[in-house]
Amino acid sequence: MTHLRSEEINDEFDGDTLHEECGVFGILGHQDAATLTALGLHALQHRGQEAAGIVTFDGRQFRTEKRMGLVGDHYTDPAILAKLPGSIAIGHTRYSTTGEVALRNVQPLFAELEVGGIAIAHNGNFTNGLTLRRQIIATGAICQSTSDTEVVLHLIARSRHSSTADRFIDAIRQMEGGYSMLAMTRTKLIAARDPTGIRPLVMGELDGKPIFCSETCALDIIGAKYIRDVENGEVIICEIQPDGSIDIDARKPANAQPERLCLFEYVYFARPDSVVGGRSVYVARKNMGINLAKESPVEGDVVVPVPDGGTPAALGYAQASGIPFEYGIIRNHYVGRTFIEPTQQIRAFGVKLKHSANRAMIEGKRVVLVDDSIVRGTTSLKIVQMIRDAGATEVHVRVASPMIFYPDFYGIDTPNADKLLANQYADVKAMAKYIGADSLEFLTIDGLYRAVGGEDRNPARPQFTDHYFTGDYPTRLLDKNGETAGLKLSVLASNG
Amino acid sequence: MTHLRSEEINDEFDGDTLHEECGVFGILGHQDAATLTALGLHALQHRGQEAAGIVTFDGRQFRTEKRMGLVGDHYTDPAILAKLPGSIAIGHTRYSTTGEVALRNVQPLFAELEVGGIAIAHNGNFTNGLTLRRQIIATGAICQSTSDTEVVLHLIARSRHSSTADRFIDAIRQMEGGYSMLAMTRTKLIAARDPTGIRPLVMGELDGKPIFCSETCALDIIGAKYIRDVENGEVIICEIQPDGSIDIDARKPANAQPERLCLFEYVYFARPDSVVGGRSVYVARKNMGINLAKESPVEGDVVVPVPDGGTPAALGYAQASGIPFEYGIIRNHYVGRTFIEPTQQIRAFGVKLKHSANRAMIEGKRVVLVDDSIVRGTTSLKIVQMIRDAGATEVHVRVASPMIFYPDFYGIDTPNADKLLANQYADVKAMAKYIGADSLEFLTIDGLYRAVGGEDRNPARPQFTDHYFTGDYPTRLLDKNGETAGLKLSVLASNG
Amino acid sequence: MTHLRSEEINDEFDGDTLHEECGVFGILGHQDAATLTALGLHALQHRGQEAAGIVTFDGRQFRTEKRMGLVGDHYTDPAILAKLPGSIAIGHTRYSTTGEVALRNVQPLFAELEVGGIAIAHNGNFTNGLTLRRQIIATGAICQSTSDTEVVLHLIARSRHSSTADRFIDAIRQMEGGYSMLAMTRTKLIAARDPTGIRPLVMGELDGKPIFCSETCALDIIGAKYIRDVENGEVIICEIQPDGSIDIDARKPANAQPERLCLFEYVYFARPDSVVGGRSVYVARKNMGINLAKESPVEGDVVVPVPDGGTPAALGYAQASGIPFEYGIIRNHYVGRTFIEPTQQIRAFGVKLKHSANRAMIEGKRVVLVDDSIVRGTTSLKIVQMIRDAGATEVHVRVASPMIFYPDFYGIDTPNADKLLANQYADVKAMAKYIGADSLEFLTIDGLYRAVGGEDRNPARPQFTDHYFTGDYPTRLLDKNGETAGLKLSVLASNG
Amino acid sequence: MTHLRSEEINDEFDGDTLHEECGVFGILGHQDAATLTALGLHALQHRGQEAAGIVTFDGRQFRTEKRMGLVGDHYTDPAILAKLPGSIAIGHTRYSTTGEVALRNVQPLFAELEVGGIAIAHNGNFTNGLTLRRQIIATGAICQSTSDTEVVLHLIARSRHSSTADRFIDAIRQMEGGYSMLAMTRTKLIAARDPTGIRPLVMGELDGKPIFCSETCALDIIGAKYIRDVENGEVIICEIQPDGSIDIDARKPANAQPERLCLFEYVYFARPDSVVGGRSVYVARKNMGINLAKESPVEGDVVVPVPDGGTPAALGYAQASGIPFEYGIIRNHYVGRTFIEPTQQIRAFGVKLKHSANRAMIEGKRVVLVDDSIVRGTTSLKIVQMIRDAGATEVHVRVASPMIFYPDFYGIDTPNADKLLANQYADVKAMAKYIGADSLEFLTIDGLYRAVGGEDRNPARPQFTDHYFTGDYPTRLLDKNGETAGLKLSVLASNG
Repeated sequence: MTHLRSEEINDEFDGDTLHEECGVFGILGHQDAATLTALGLHALQHRGQEAAGIVTFDGRQFRTEKRMGLVGDHYTDPAILAKLPGSIAIGHTRYSTTGEVALRNVQPLFAELEVGGIAIAHNGNFTNGLTLRRQIIATGAICQSTSDTEVVLHLIARSRHSSTADRFIDAIRQMEGGYSMLAMTRTKLIAARDPTGIRPLVMGELDGKPIFCSETCALDIIGAKYIRDVENGEVIICEIQPDGSIDIDARKPANAQPERLCLFEYVYFARPDSVVGGRSVYVARKNMGINLAKESPVEGDVVVPVPDGGTPAALGYAQASGIPFEYGIIRNHYVGRTFIEPTQQIRAFGVKLKHSANRAMIEGKRVVLVDDSIVRGTTSLKIVQMIRDAGATEVHVRVASPMIFYPDFYGIDTPNADKLLANQYADVKAMAKYIGADSLEFLTIDGLYRAVGGEDRNPARPQFTDHYFTGDYPTRLLDKNGETAGLKLSVLASNG
Repeated sequence: MTHLRSEEINDEFDGDTLHEECGVFGILGHQDAATLTALGLHALQHRGQEAAGIVTFDGRQFRTEKRMGLVGDHYTDPAILAKLPGSIAIGHTRYSTTGEVALRNVQPLFAELEVGGIAIAHNGNFTNGLTLRRQIIATGAICQSTSDTEVVLHLIARSRHSSTADRFIDAIRQMEGGYSMLAMTRTKLIAARDPTGIRPLVMGELDGKPIFCSETCALDIIGAKYIRDVENGEVIICEIQPDGSIDIDARKPANAQPERLCLFEYVYFARPDSVVGGRSVYVARKNMGINLAKESPVEGDVVVPVPDGGTPAALGYAQASGIPFEYGIIRNHYVGRTFIEPTQQIRAFGVKLKHSANRAMIEGKRVVLVDDSIVRGTTSLKIVQMIRDAGATEVHVRVASPMIFYPDFYGIDTPNADKLLANQYADVKAMAKYIGADSLEFLTIDGLYRAVGGEDRNPARPQFTDHYFTGDYPTRLLDKNGETAGLKLSVLASNG
Repeated sequence: MTHLRSEEINDEFDGDTLHEECGVFGILGHQDAATLTALGLHALQHRGQEAAGIVTFDGRQFRTEKRMGLVGDHYTDPAILAKLPGSIAIGHTRYSTTGEVALRNVQPLFAELEVGGIAIAHNGNFTNGLTLRRQIIATGAICQSTSDTEVVLHLIARSRHSSTADRFIDAIRQMEGGYSMLAMTRTKLIAARDPTGIRPLVMGELDGKPIFCSETCALDIIGAKYIRDVENGEVIICEIQPDGSIDIDARKPANAQPERLCLFEYVYFARPDSVVGGRSVYVARKNMGINLAKESPVEGDVVVPVPDGGTPAALGYAQASGIPFEYGIIRNHYVGRTFIEPTQQIRAFGVKLKHSANRAMIEGKRVVLVDDSIVRGTTSLKIVQMIRDAGATEVHVRVASPMIFYPDFYGIDTPNADKLLANQYADVKAMAKYIGADSLEFLTIDGLYRAVGGEDRNPARPQFTDHYFTGDYPTRLLDKNGETAGLKLSVLASNG
Repeated sequence: MTHLRSEEINDEFDGDTLHEECGVFGILGHQDAATLTALGLHALQHRGQEAAGIVTFDGRQFRTEKRMGLVGDHYTDPAILAKLPGSIAIGHTRYSTTGEVALRNVQPLFAELEVGGIAIAHNGNFTNGLTLRRQIIATGAICQSTSDTEVVLHLIARSRHSSTADRFIDAIRQMEGGYSMLAMTRTKLIAARDPTGIRPLVMGELDGKPIFCSETCALDIIGAKYIRDVENGEVIICEIQPDGSIDIDARKPANAQPERLCLFEYVYFARPDSVVGGRSVYVARKNMGINLAKESPVEGDVVVPVPDGGTPAALGYAQASGIPFEYGIIRNHYVGRTFIEPTQQIRAFGVKLKHSANRAMIEGKRVVLVDDSIVRGTTSLKIVQMIRDAGATEVHVRVASPMIFYPDFYGIDTPNADKLLANQYADVKAMAKYIGADSLEFLTIDGLYRAVGGEDRNPARPQFTDHYFTGDYPTRLLDKNGETAGLKLSVLASNG
């Protein structure tokens, strides 16, 4: 059912990059809440293709539908939407990093509290989730999912506060890491962003009703208006009143820290038409290509993007360098389902199911290949080979982000450190040799900062988080370094 | 997927009886644990056709598979069994009384405790489940299923005892009602039966490994040996030792009450080839027919069973009365799936999809129809009509159990009291008129007791529970009569 | 999807009998034609469980739906019936003997002729199908199915007659073998039976509209009235007139031969509530048991039927012998789908998925097992073993039909002659030893004739066809003995 | 299952173009014949997404698998490929123009002839198919599909020639229209192209084994070498010899006509990386944009392609005009299945499920939108509106092909002539007003000819076929203009 799975992605060119876990969407007070949520999740599909879930409250009880696969495989089917009546909804689309694809882990998760039901969904990751999980299990709680989201539910259930909103804030204040979170009760929609603002979350409005979602493209698809980004550390509580009006209460913690948005949202995750942190993602990517052309020029006949991630940067590189931009690689959009697990026979043919070289633009040419990032280098190797097979005389690889040295703990699925290309070879030359390129260059960290924010990195107080490049983590890493370190939860494996 | 659903059953002849909820099976220390559990559940399929689940422990982690539909629709598929390695397993097959058919309610349920994981499955119902649920939610617990099984898990998690077995006993001692329960940890298989022994549970053995299951037919299918019934109120803890041997520890509470097995197990639920409470179900049913023939003789040409439930009693009736036993109703076994929700057109034809009259045995004859029980009478009405349409000159209905007046609270799905035939008409004559029979008689309560146990009902201390006939409930009914009475839990509706 | 496949059947007790290919149903002039056809096919499901098809004419064009699996898996689904509007319909349910289960072989088949469309469906087999197929291919025809039905279509298309009815008769007169055939055009419903009347076909009527079907049980399910059997060699043409009235034209060939109905319809194929050739199948089967008791009495404690086929004969045997009839074998109706191909593990357990011994009726008893027929004996062997394992002191097998020595060529799927039990052992004693029985007896051919028709077999002119017992084939066998003998058609293998 | 259906396509931007019917692939003598065919069809998926079929010959019998949906949904599944052994294979991928999506119409079609089996598959359409069909039905043939391919099979079956190759040529010589056809027998692979060479067909080679396919991209995916185009009117017969070598026999008719390849292959159908008629499709499309920029310049700030068809032309336009090329429209690749039939609610929102405006590149800008073609203009209208909603100050539409006035009869699905934008408005200005553009210009016919072939159209003897633009049809149109005109075949409607 899943159209793009990590296994397959890893087999081909766009596999050699990082993956994020999730997208969220919520709306309060709109009669088409579930439909709008389905559309919003569809626009956020690039943030997670494994599964999607929606919860609504129909005035009497909470309703939920969860499905493996794409939003468009199931939702907006009238029969499914008919099971999700009500004017409050939150939804979640998911990419699993754990390999366990059970429906019980698909968000939103729900709990029946003494004060009423609550559903929550989040994007990102908690750096103290395992530590907290151990503590609550030790005091008699039952954990039925393997998702950290459930830990938040337990903290809410155990809070001594009386109102659900206060309980939610009580719980969220205990969570460390990088996350954007949505919660809904029978009358409220609550949005929260982590203290450092690592993961994005924006607020919008349609017909006067508040919306929260991971990216602005989810507002655009339904014609909603962008209001502002939820601030780092902020909790916004929207409550529908008996007269139908909506109260909005934004709370910001006293000890606010400076925001450090994840640079990989700009490099790869966010959709190019989204505006993240007030900056066009497309413009940022073109700037990366422009800066890359300035930093690492090369003689060439054509600039060829590695689709789809490298396209805006390639365009920037071409414009800055004056070398013509050409589609040297053609993408086949009709991938289908069984190619996901191709037979050994097909692997043996070395077949490229999703890409092919456009020989007319490659043969006899010096090709400048522009990609957004290189993670392990395994697919760069394949693509360089494909370009050479199509007759290129030279292949120069230009990467629109710095080398990746460190793992992420905020919701990005990173391979083991020793699998990262940058950790396997001494220098760029050795890497170029490995991938078979005549030359290889990466964008500098300052080049990236300027492309996104307009100025160099401030080492004293970096404007973004860039730990995968620099090792400078924006939070402590309790699960990793604390006493729980190394301990694995014994979990129930399920496919039901 | 489900081949026999309550809606469909209710449309035809065998619908006019009661439904039980579940069957359980568990085995410890056998390398084919999951396969044997699947076969055992298949033999218990008559106790619940909606869904089935199995949990194993593979030496490292717990594994579970849950599926809607018949055991034979999914399990014993090598691909599914391959996901259930390990030598400990418990399984559950289910008939839902609530109408909510979500996989999250399919047992066994599992919890990760501080002392390790535990999975539980039960047959029957708790009469204080709702009361306990409210109490634990009030103290910060999260309930994610709508099943009372989850309440037991919470009680285990919160118990102050250190060993899992002691925690289990601590929890089970708080549960009231009629139930048989199985639990498994990484090394233990635990079986428990309610203090009054309402629901059945037997212990068997295969290759020296202990087995617990709802009925002996689940032992027969795998060639296992019957050891004994688990006693009412008893908890049996089997633990595999490091050397592979198995310790068995049977604990009985001090204040044991006399056993009162549910009579409906003999009347309808149990499979005829099972031995329940040491008595052959088939023999008991034949005895019911024999006693019925003695109590309520009638002039007739043929004794015709209402298939399949009435067959053994009809045979007994025929043998005792000397009237020939004949198959006057033929059953179509090929029902398929879409007939489950027949079109209005088909309903309009008054079509009998599963049964037809065998005219050669009916036409011109005085027919004595023998059924196991009558609940609402709606289907008796249809069957009498079908027999008359086939040319019977007289139709006499004989029912091999007493009139049903009261609802059950121990796991049997009963219609509202005012829907019961016995509560709708003043006397047997009026009932006979309603269903269109020339005469109608029910077996007496003493006739039933003698058929099953060999002696009359002891009013001071009834040997069985017979509350649906007499109103004499074997336990208090806290949820029904306590302060929680009338309160409904706000639950999450889901189809995922 | 298929609930009962030959592989599975062969693994268990009811596998050791023969299989017929098909059932047919047609109706003219009724507004619910497709629904009634679906119901009729459901009643004929025992004649073929592999696939079913229906064709209607909606006044403008022909419509068809074909599905693998049970009638009740697909038809009577309102969405499917909605695709089959119109007041003329024919339908077919099929058991495949060839192993190729492609939809393109599912009947009815259809052809667009110059004079308009025609759809045909048949039950039985042609003994000159292959010979004719070779002839028409040699003259430029294209055969796209592997079904002989298509040969009939070609003969109709090539006929020089102008009316469709005349073309149909022209074609059918060229076909040899045992068959019942239905055809429909835009205005006509045509029924035909082979010259010897081997396969059954009856005519009925509902609301004044003509119906043809394989057995009377398909009339009973929709409340239709039985009119008469279609005679051997007869062709009945029903045509709807412009005023809505229906003309019925029955044509009988001059050189009519005496009818010889297939005895296996009485022994096993037909449903017990059907009336075939004017005789109740149930009564015939009971008579077989009665005659068997007279011919082959034995001392015993219980008469136990092998379900389901042996039940009426066992009842007859019990009544005639005075030995009590008891259910010593219990059948599990919930077989499901994956058990169809059980894992090797399950086979290794020697598990009986569909049957179990009712120990209470077997243990310590001398058991008289009554079965309808024995083909290969492999399953008799298993059942005798099961009865012994349950504690029987003696097991006597009584078979309510004669020994089978010869293959069938009229639509019954027979194993190779050397696989037949009767051909493998010198005498009944050797056979008894093979199956492990203390004694084994078969009904005599005269005993069978008397049970069905009331008198002994007339050797000069047998009243039925009994070639599997006697080798006396009612027709010549052109494909088998002619010049095409041994030649196999090179066919396209397909699963689409 | 189908991921892109006409309904959905028509709802969005890329819907406003034409659709072709099919792609074909065949290989002889390679042990991985089916796998290579599956891969080749995958590369040809853009030519038809509705269904795909493959036939092989395994040395003993022909095998076929046909499936609705994408090649990658089913084929290359090892279980399906395992059903297609053998070293000869032909395959077909299909877009249906008729609306009937029955498997029986999915090619390749197969017939068992006296001289052996033959399977055929074709791309394109016959202009005398209906006429021939009537003739063969009149002489006793049965047509079971509604596909013209079956007509070819009948002509082969009826041919008086003895060899299959001669029969094939005999048949193909009777067919008029535009088509590429593949056939296979037990030892031969045959390729044919229509006399005018309207549809493309190329010959390649892998490991010395001959391959035929619609486009060179199907050679590239498996690393096969391009040999040459099959010439118009040519029939190439490849036969495997007893020693494993392959004989190739190319026959060209005496009365060869000049080739006239379909210009729409260059404008829209063929994949950009294919080489058609010896010319790079990508280069041709870029040239169209370059010529368009010269013919119809406009002041603008950005050149924005309408994805995906307009991209190469937009790049050419940008390079020639000096206006920056920018991605002003972002495509969502995760469409899924249920969005194919979006609820009314979603339609009501006017939601663009597959595209969104990249506001950062549009707002405040004069946008030059470049599309490959305009058919009805309905989607151009929507896209112009979307660009305006995103803040464009001006929107100029430039179309890289001429106005379409006439229907196609050679395999392209064209709307009724009166639905074509060019037939609905008097001039370009009126059209521009209808679609809401500030200006609208089309490429001239000479501009298109120069882009593809390097020189102006030769009116005396056009180098390509361009009938949709000019009305100059390359063949007579017998079905349309002959005596069969207006007559519709009464066909069997089926969904099985």
